[in-house]
Amino acid sequence: MMEAIVQLYQKFLSLYDIRILKVTFDIIKILVITFIGIKIGDMLISRFYKLHRKAKIQLPERKIGTLISLTKNILRYVIYFIAAASILKIFNIEMTSILAVAGIGSLAIGFGAQNLVKDVISGFFIIFEDQFSVGDYVTINGISGTVEEIGLRITKIRGFSDGLHIIPNGEIKMVSNLTKDSMMAVVNIGFPLEEDVDKIIDGLQQICDDIKNSRDDLIEGPSILGITDMQDSKLLITLYAKTQPMQKWAVERDIRYRVKKMFDEKNISFPYPRTNIILTNKN
Amino acid sequence: MMEAIVQLYQKFLSLYDIRILKVTFDIIKILVITFIGIKIGDMLISRFYKLHRKAKIQLPERKIGTLISLTKNILRYVIYFIAAASILKIFNIEMTSILAVAGIGSLAIGFGAQNLVKDVISGFFIIFEDQFSVGDYVTINGISGTVEEIGLRITKIRGFSDGLHIIPNGEIKMVSNLTKDSMMAVVNIGFPLEEDVDKIIDGLQQICDDIKNSRDDLIEGPSILGITDMQDSKLLITLYAKTQPMQKWAVERDIRYRVKKMFDEKNISFPYPRTNIILTNKN
Amino acid sequence: MMEAIVQLYQKFLSLYDIRILKVTFDIIKILVITFIGIKIGDMLISRFYKLHRKAKIQLPERKIGTLISLTKNILRYVIYFIAAASILKIFNIEMTSILAVAGIGSLAIGFGAQNLVKDVISGFFIIFEDQFSVGDYVTINGISGTVEEIGLRITKIRGFSDGLHIIPNGEIKMVSNLTKDSMMAVVNIGFPLEEDVDKIIDGLQQICDDIKNSRDDLIEGPSILGITDMQDSKLLITLYAKTQPMQKWAVERDIRYRVKKMFDEKNISFPYPRTNIILTNKN
Amino acid sequence: MMEAIVQLYQKFLSLYDIRILKVTFDIIKILVITFIGIKIGDMLISRFYKLHRKAKIQLPERKIGTLISLTKNILRYVIYFIAAASILKIFNIEMTSILAVAGIGSLAIGFGAQNLVKDVISGFFIIFEDQFSVGDYVTINGISGTVEEIGLRITKIRGFSDGLHIIPNGEIKMVSNLTKDSMMAVVNIGFPLEEDVDKIIDGLQQICDDIKNSRDDLIEGPSILGITDMQDSKLLITLYAKTQPMQKWAVERDIRYRVKKMFDEKNISFPYPRTNIILTNKN
Amino acid sequence: MMEAIVQLYQKFLSLYDIRILKVTFDIIKILVITFIGIKIGDMLISRFYKLHRKAKIQLPERKIGTLISLTKNILRYVIYFIAAASILKIFNIEMTSILAVAGIGSLAIGFGAQNLVKDVISGFFIIFEDQFSVGDYVTINGISGTVEEIGLRITKIRGFSDGLHIIPNGEIKMVSNLTKDSMMAVVNIGFPLEEDVDKIIDGLQQICDDIKNSRDDLIEGPSILGITDMQDSKLLITLYAKTQPMQKWAVERDIRYRVKKMFDEKNISFPYPRTNIILTNKN
Amino acid sequence: MMEAIVQLYQKFLSLYDIRILKVTFDIIKILVITFIGIKIGDMLISRFYKLHRKAKIQLPERKIGTLISLTKNILRYVIYFIAAASILKIFNIEMTSILAVAGIGSLAIGFGAQNLVKDVISGFFIIFEDQFSVGDYVTINGISGTVEEIGLRITKIRGFSDGLHIIPNGEIKMVSNLTKDSMMAVVNIGFPLEEDVDKIIDGLQQICDDIKNSRDDLIEGPSILGITDMQDSKLLITLYAKTQPMQKWAVERDIRYRVKKMFDEKNISFPYPRTNIILTNKN
Amino acid sequence: MMEAIVQLYQKFLSLYDIRILKVTFDIIKILVITFIGIKIGDMLISRFYKLHRKAKIQLPERKIGTLISLTKNILRYVIYFIAAASILKIFNIEMTSILAVAGIGSLAIGFGAQNLVKDVISGFFIIFEDQFSVGDYVTINGISGTVEEIGLRITKIRGFSDGLHIIPNGEIKMVSNLTKDSMMAVVNIGFPLEEDVDKIIDGLQQICDDIKNSRDDLIEGPSILGITDMQDSKLLITLYAKTQPMQKWAVERDIRYRVKKMFDEKNISFPYPRTNIILTNKN
Repeated sequence: MMEAIVQLYQKFLSLYDIRILKVTFDIIKILVITFIGIKIGDMLISRFYKLHRKAKIQLPERKIGTLISLTKNILRYVIYFIAAASILKIFNIEMTSILAVAGIGSLAIGFGAQNLVKDVISGFFIIFEDQFSVGDYVTINGISGTVEEIGLRITKIRGFSDGLHIIPNGEIKMVSNLTKDSMMAVVNIGFPLEEDVDKIIDGLQQICDDIKNSRDDLIEGPSILGITDMQDSKLLITLYAKTQPMQKWAVERDIRYRVKKMFDEKNISFPYPRTNIILTNKN
Repeated sequence: MMEAIVQLYQKFLSLYDIRILKVTFDIIKILVITFIGIKIGDMLISRFYKLHRKAKIQLPERKIGTLISLTKNILRYVIYFIAAASILKIFNIEMTSILAVAGIGSLAIGFGAQNLVKDVISGFFIIFEDQFSVGDYVTINGISGTVEEIGLRITKIRGFSDGLHIIPNGEIKMVSNLTKDSMMAVVNIGFPLEEDVDKIIDGLQQICDDIKNSRDDLIEGPSILGITDMQDSKLLITLYAKTQPMQKWAVERDIRYRVKKMFDEKNISFPYPRTNIILTNKN
Repeated sequence: MMEAIVQLYQKFLSLYDIRILKVTFDIIKILVITFIGIKIGDMLISRFYKLHRKAKIQLPERKIGTLISLTKNILRYVIYFIAAASILKIFNIEMTSILAVAGIGSLAIGFGAQNLVKDVISGFFIIFEDQFSVGDYVTINGISGTVEEIGLRITKIRGFSDGLHIIPNGEIKMVSNLTKDSMMAVVNIGFPLEEDVDKIIDGLQQICDDIKNSRDDLIEGPSILGITDMQDSKLLITLYAKTQPMQKWAVERDIRYRVKKMFDEKNISFPYPRTNIILTNKN
Repeated sequence: MMEAIVQLYQKFLSLYDIRILKVTFDIIKILVITFIGIKIGDMLISRFYKLHRKAKIQLPERKIGTLISLTKNILRYVIYFIAAASILKIFNIEMTSILAVAGIGSLAIGFGAQNLVKDVISGFFIIFEDQFSVGDYVTINGISGTVEEIGLRITKIRGFSDGLHIIPNGEIKMVSNLTKDSMMAVVNIGFPLEEDVDKIIDGLQQICDDIKNSRDDLIEGPSILGITDMQDSKLLITLYAKTQPMQKWAVERDIRYRVKKMFDEKNISFPYPRTNIILTNKN
Repeated sequence: MMEAIVQLYQKFLSLYDIRILKVTFDIIKILVITFIGIKIGDMLISRFYKLHRKAKIQLPERKIGTLISLTKNILRYVIYFIAAASILKIFNIEMTSILAVAGIGSLAIGFGAQNLVKDVISGFFIIFEDQFSVGDYVTINGISGTVEEIGLRITKIRGFSDGLHIIPNGEIKMVSNLTKDSMMAVVNIGFPLEEDVDKIIDGLQQICDDIKNSRDDLIEGPSILGITDMQDSKLLITLYAKTQPMQKWAVERDIRYRVKKMFDEKNISFPYPRTNIILTNKN
Repeated sequence: MMEAIVQLYQKFLSLYDIRILKVTFDIIKILVITFIGIKIGDMLISRFYKLHRKAKIQLPERKIGTLISLTKNILRYVIYFIAAASILKIFNIEMTSILAVAGIGSLAIGFGAQNLVKDVISGFFIIFEDQFSVGDYVTINGISGTVEEIGLRITKIRGFSDGLHIIPNGEIKMVSNLTKDSMMAVVNIGFPLEEDVDKIIDGLQQICDDIKNSRDDLIEGPSILGITDMQDSKLLITLYAKTQPMQKWAVERDIRYRVKKMFDEKNISFPYPRTNIILTNKN
Repeated sequence: MMEAIVQLYQKFLSLYDIRILKVTFDIIKILVITFIGIKIGDMLISRFYKLHRKAKIQLPERKIGTLISLTKNILRYVIYFIAAASILKIFNIEMTSILAVAGIGSLAIGFGAQNLVKDVISGFFIIFEDQFSVGDYVTINGISGTVEEIGLRITKIRGFSDGLHIIPNGEIKMVSNLTKDSMMAVVNIGFPLEEDVDKIIDGLQQICDDIKNSRDDLIEGPSILGITDMQDSKLLITLYAKTQPMQKWAVERDIRYRVKKMFDEKNISFPYPRTNIILTNKN
């Protein structure tokens, strides 16, 4: 093995002697071809999907984004793999001798690479089982955001204010997809225990009716679920509504605004925490 | 191995030369057949289960949903597997040469794929042992919702407001099935320590009787369990009732509404947190 | 390997051609036999245990429930395994060819299936070591409930209000069995620091005596353990009693009810949190 | 392999034909022998240890409990193992054919069974290194209680009120043995910052002396450790005493009772949380 | 093997005898060559990238930093590897004999080295997939900071006040890249429930307009998102703005300053926690 | 394999027939020799170390405790191992046949025993690298106490009040050794924000000087570190001192006692939590 | 294998017969040589580095500490390894026979030793990549302190008051190095919401200027970052400064002292938590 390394060393030196220019030229050639290959590939893919739009049998719009990002991703992996093999060829370093050096490390490589395989298998099933598409709003491992790219190895999710999350597919334990067709807006509102519960429910019903009339991004108008919790110093009443995708938050903010107005108009006392004080003076 | 890659490369290039149209056509043909195969398969399965409904020996309704989702799921995996094999065949890339390239990676694949195997084995036993059916309300890994689909590899659970959860079967450590025949409604109500406990129990008994008479989704009418906890500033009294599946929450909300009314009518003071203040003026 | 898949494909197609009816018929035949086999097996098992009850040497009642659930469980696994093998036989797909396809995946299967083996081994020891029986009240991995079924692979536990928990035996790290012969009822009661501790202990002793006389589900009458904790604003005094299985909670509720009464009668002030306020006016 | 299964199937059926009675009889015979073997073994073991008590060279009493539970445990494993092998023999199912079926699963069995091996190895060292004996009070993985049984695979710990904990030995990461010869009673008592610290220490010293005189389960009389913590609104003073095994809690309760009395007698104000309020009226 | 060690021992001693000076000289020679090699390599790399800046086709500025740090990193690993092999050669210790000594340990090495392989594979994909570049602001495993170096095995991140974090690439489970083109500034402001919500929104709108006019590091001017939460004693209103990279915090501080001014000017009461006190005098 | 078991069974029976007495006698003989061997070994080891004390070249006292406990521990393992092998020899059960039975389980044993190997390797390095000695005060995995015994497989740590902790060496992830030559006493003291900080620092300096003069277990007299934290309602000032081993707590208690006295003398108000109350009467 | 053990046993006994003195003498000889070898090696290393200080080309001072600790560490491992091999040689126990005994355990050893390999690999990279040097202040796995020794297997970190932490290198997941050239001092100061923010900022600016003039351990003088958080009852304003290594805390304490003075001088009210109380009398 020592000889193999020495041989590598001599090759390495000889490269620097004469052939260095040729090799550099060859590598640049491959890199340029790779670069052009990707550009052309991307272009062809985009063009293909544009053509598709004129076709009679249409894929759902939602799937096309996923397919474009995926085919480009696969193309890139294939081209890079060929380029890497070609460059190694130029250096005339036989794979086998590298493997001989690695030899003892093959177990380590096997263990170390398992995450890579896990990522690709998971990625394959995410796409195959259509767990989510580009544009969906999902929650993965406690991170929420809009899916921006689905690849074989990683998924990219754009959060509202916490940047672009890049998650290896193998790390995805559970996906919660919040946008298949509709989203659910839910607002929990606290009321003091001493208020008249029927007056409050009447007021909330009025709000539900108003919202149903004034908004057009609702699929099923807001309804009152009832007293969903009774705590030490307040009642929780829950309103819910089925909305268009991504409209959940706007509806929730609208409900909150109107509830705040109702507190003012109907003179309902605010649900501040209450405490019963028993005084013992000790002067 | 280097030659294998170069061969791949040349094949790859040659594909782009002439045969590219034929190959594309072949692939599309397979995809179309696959697509049609699935559609027909799904139709046949649905029709079969419709036919079954006229049969004399009936499977329980609850199992049919599970069986439909499962047979479709298996059909899909089989057809896709055949399609993938056929497409690889078109490219004339022998599996064996790929495996030769993989070679060193077989250990990695073995480790990486273990999750896939784990998922399928777990999925098989979930179905085989009838842990839950489509339509059941379950809690899995802290996520609650209605089972929407049981597959060999994943289970889909629809939450009330947090979207569709997609859980790989191998990640399911413990299943809590809340709807086998009945659900249990439980409401804990706090009362101030200084109130008359017998008056409260009388009032709660009255509520139990009223609910038993007015609702028809109860299997075993609400009962008082007694003082289930005695905290620093309140007693906890628990009511419980066995209800029809999915009626648990409606019953609980009903109980809470009536208890709130009882507080008002019977003039029971609210269980606000109490504090005993000892004052020391320091002017 | 490619040929094996193509062969599978052709077989698959040929099945749809002519033999499809025969195959379907065969499968249904096997399913029916399986179904009947299980019914008869279940019946035989039940009958056997009924017969046993007339026998002279009696197994303890508590073990019979476990044995019935277990033998039915094993029977089922055996019959299903034979049925599955028979169906595969009909399709004439030799196991060996499947294994050849699997081939590379055998490592993955080995890793993936380890949980299954772990479950069965754990299950075997749970039964063998008599860790718990059907009907016992146990706590496993933070879940409490009554054991409803002990199988080779899973254990089913019925919670009071959180449904039926299905736990793979391999996930059971520690079992806490609360009902072997007796249960321990324990109530911690808080008293304000400024109260007379002897008066309180007298009152609690009175309660202990009353309960001992009035209840018949006690094995060792309630006793006072003494001041088990002294916190910033209260003393904790603990009562405990050994009760019949499953009577723990009833006894605890009874104690709490009587203690609340004692607070009222003896005019003991309630253990509300106390705070010493030092006032600094700043007008 | 298929033939092996079919063979199994035919054997299975043939068993039901004629030999079923003979087989059943054989099994029952083995079970009875096993049952008797265990009874006799248990008896012999108990008798042996009784004999031992008359011997001149005595093992410490504390070890005998452990040895009895251990030898019975090992006997049981050996007898059951022989019985299981005999029953399999009756069915004439050669182990090897089962292993052939298992074949592919041997890796899975290896992985799955590692917990079993881990348990036995851990159990062996717990006994060999005398980490704890039957009757000791230990804390293992957050669970405290008295050791009731030490086996090769599991350890049983009886908690005060939370039942019998059954812990596989391999899950025992750290053992805290609280009773080797003595236990340490420790009570932390809070005093308000504004009290005279010397007066308090005098009072506590008085309590220490009283306890030393009145109790006989102390090895080293209670002492004052000093101000072990100074918090925002109180001082913590710690008393400690070395007691006989299992007397720790009784001594602690005694100390608490006497400290409460001291608060009353010496007119020390209670360590209620204190807050300094700065008032800003806004009328 | 014993002989191999003894041989090593004798060699070791002989080294100290005569050849020690020569060996030391050889090692120093190699170290000096290595040192010079790295210096020259670093210089060549820097020069190459400087040359590149005059080239017509420009790589994006953002990528050049990453490429420089990466090529230097790879160069260093290659040179050190050759140097280490050469030094071992001097000692004339054949690799094979070392491996023979290791022998039994090869499994251990395989397992132990898997992290190294995992790190390099992860590092390769971080660079290949362009997850982040030198200069980006990222969050990795709960640590936030500016990327200072991306290597094959480790990534260095400079935190604002908590020093330089060095993370092995294999430990990177999820990357959140906060600076791709823009950052999102988000400020949540609490208002008391009893205030007039429209007056507040007007004031905040005024602030948004002012900021938009006075700052030039904004991509999309600050906007009001609405009432994003309604808590027991306050409303939360959220302002957000898309800013230039790294300007997020300056914009947020500016918004906070102006909101504080608005509280003063518009006489809005501060969102102190509110509590409703019910007094019971007990004199 | 079946025959091997049957053979075992017959041997087992035959043992009970005639040779049982001889075997029992042989085993007892071995046990007695083992017992005596350990006693003599322990005695020789103790004597050797006593002899050592008269030797001229002395090992540090601190190491001798560790060496005694270690050599006794190794002796014990060696003797037990030989005894176990001899007993197995008596039963004439060849190891190889046991291994044949184990056969399939060798993988399981390999996995299961890895913890044992890990423990011994870790133990070896703890001793070899002198991480701690018998008598040191250490913190391991959140448990603090004085090291009582260091063995090859386990370490025993005596806590102040929580008994004797027995930790397998392989579970030791990080050791914090608090007594190498000295310990550091640290006391954080809170002062109200409104007090005069210079007056406080003067008082604390006085305390530091007093302690330096009155105690002789200090290596570096107590010093004031300054304002180490500024919280909402108090300043934290930290005193620290380097003390003799195990004197840390005594010094800290002394400092606390004197600080409490200073509060009284200098009339500094106590650092009770402060709250600014804004009152809104609503009568 | 049995014979091997018996052989071991006989050898063991024979050792005790005659050769015991010779063997003991040989071992002591080796131990003494080892001891002297280490002493001389340590001396040579120290001398070499002293010589180096007179050399023209100087290594940075910071690296020398690391190199000394490292070379001593490697020397020690090498010498101990040779000594251990020599002692085994004396006993004439061939390694191979030990390995034969181990045999079945080789898998266990492989798994058990992986941590050791992991530690050495990690240690190698920590040194190679210059993650930290002796004397740096680092945070590793939540433990902060000054690096005292970097070894191949373990790293020693001296905490301020929590002793010497000994961390196996393989347990180091992320290193945060706080002292490369400079440290960052950061102080967050809370101010009541109702105070004039401009007056506060002026005061803080004054403090920044004063500190810049009076201290010489600052690299970049303290600056005001602005309002970094706005909480319910206070504003947070942050000051920061770049300081000499290890001067971070002194600067922070200085800032806090001056801010406290500013509160007094400028009559700014303290940031006590504020609460808005709404009173409801119930007499």
